[in-house]
Amino acid sequence: MSINITIIGMGLMGASLAGALQGFGGAKIKGADASAGVCQTATQNGFVSECTQNTAEAVKGADVIIFCTYAGQISSILRQCLPFIKEGALVCDICGVKTPLYEEILPMLAGSGIRHIGLHPMAGRERDGIENADPALYNGSSMLLCPTATTQKQDEDFAAALAKHIGCAAVKTVNWQKHDEIIAYTSDLMHISASALCIDYPEEMSREFTAGAYRDCTRVANINAPGWTELLCDNRLHTMHWLGKYIDNLNKIHAALENNDKKELCALLQTAQNHKLEMLEK
Amino acid sequence: MSINITIIGMGLMGASLAGALQGFGGAKIKGADASAGVCQTATQNGFVSECTQNTAEAVKGADVIIFCTYAGQISSILRQCLPFIKEGALVCDICGVKTPLYEEILPMLAGSGIRHIGLHPMAGRERDGIENADPALYNGSSMLLCPTATTQKQDEDFAAALAKHIGCAAVKTVNWQKHDEIIAYTSDLMHISASALCIDYPEEMSREFTAGAYRDCTRVANINAPGWTELLCDNRLHTMHWLGKYIDNLNKIHAALENNDKKELCALLQTAQNHKLEMLEK
Repeated sequence: MSINITIIGMGLMGASLAGALQGFGGAKIKGADASAGVCQTATQNGFVSECTQNTAEAVKGADVIIFCTYAGQISSILRQCLPFIKEGALVCDICGVKTPLYEEILPMLAGSGIRHIGLHPMAGRERDGIENADPALYNGSSMLLCPTATTQKQDEDFAAALAKHIGCAAVKTVNWQKHDEIIAYTSDLMHISASALCIDYPEEMSREFTAGAYRDCTRVANINAPGWTELLCDNRLHTMHWLGKYIDNLNKIHAALENNDKKELCALLQTAQNHKLEMLEK
Repeated sequence: MSINITIIGMGLMGASLAGALQGFGGAKIKGADASAGVCQTATQNGFVSECTQNTAEAVKGADVIIFCTYAGQISSILRQCLPFIKEGALVCDICGVKTPLYEEILPMLAGSGIRHIGLHPMAGRERDGIENADPALYNGSSMLLCPTATTQKQDEDFAAALAKHIGCAAVKTVNWQKHDEIIAYTSDLMHISASALCIDYPEEMSREFTAGAYRDCTRVANINAPGWTELLCDNRLHTMHWLGKYIDNLNKIHAALENNDKKELCALLQTAQNHKLEMLEK
């Protein structure tokens, strides 16, 4: 196998992916990024063999094109470079929310002879940008595969092999609508929960009053606010659903405290622990 | 210095403390526990040199007595063994909530010639009992000191030296009412937040859909439900205050999503990140 892979967007995710893909069969990894400085860093650090600001140039001759830009940029970039993508190529994205993007790009790809599969590596860092890129970023994470109308069996196999090569510990295929529904809980709600914990805090608080619970529950509140605003709004209906359920359960706990109802409070905590243990087993 | 220290309650916290206190000056560490089996394990594992089920016996001749039982048991045990505690001895507790306990025991100690200081090591484990005890439990944690009416300067110094010996990285003195107010946020609210996240979850969810955010935000949902019911109810007014503020902030985020108000959502997330970074610096 000797394929040409083009990665569009050399931020944290794209540059890390490019670096992790080195040695994947005989693949040649090219990059594209809007910033000349980022392109330079990408080649200097050996993430890619070449990197260009010209996306049309970058996709020419590519067998696989992986979009690693912000979700909101993908459909306009794809529209511009679509005439330069060869028939039979495979287009991938690594977006955290699929529905808004796929409603735009799937009709664009239909009948073009270009295939598509969605990827979602469950990995990330608090700090983004190529300066935080690390080929080990995906180690031990899971890779979700979201087949769409043009996905063939060979594309799923390719994506699974790619995931294995970059260090993913698990690969799971899931319908993309269901993907967005579940991610609203496992990712969106967690980031909201952590962030809301940090909006107010006691004036006299200092680090000595904290232990592992505070550290872990609030870790992801160190968030990229504009980026997450987009992600959350892209998945707002599912996110509102799970956030609503969360607020309901917090209100139940508040009521149990208000009534000093130990039986009810203990039952709620016990349900939580049972579910947490269930998930640790799954 | 050659002092006699008696630790009452050989559970996770007490047995770990006893183990960590080995080699603390020339201190002799005795234990007491209601269970004969636990007493046996405590001596066999070398946590204490001797351990008895007879608390009155255990406190005789002790210079320092540290209560490591559940908070709800302390005042009745103290009442029973008070006649056997020598004048000039120092009584300590390691409770996570101070107010309900101190309202009972401080009047009991007043005028007795026995002094008191509250300790709160910010450490713990999901699993309790002597079988999970570990002298390294306190390594790197902070120790909060809560002086009360009878505390002398030398008691604070002693408690700070003890904290240093068991591996605490920081020691902070705080008024006990203020302690309960701050802990309601840094500990109680965090455990409620994590637990409520696990009460409902998507049916089709499995571990592949999770990453660090889910793992960390829900870690402490693997909770000792009866034990935490007592802790939360002991600090219910402060906990309700912070839980109420938390629910308000989550409702603001929900409203921003409902209105697709990106500016408001981004401002909320940005405030959260700013506060989280502030706390990392403190």
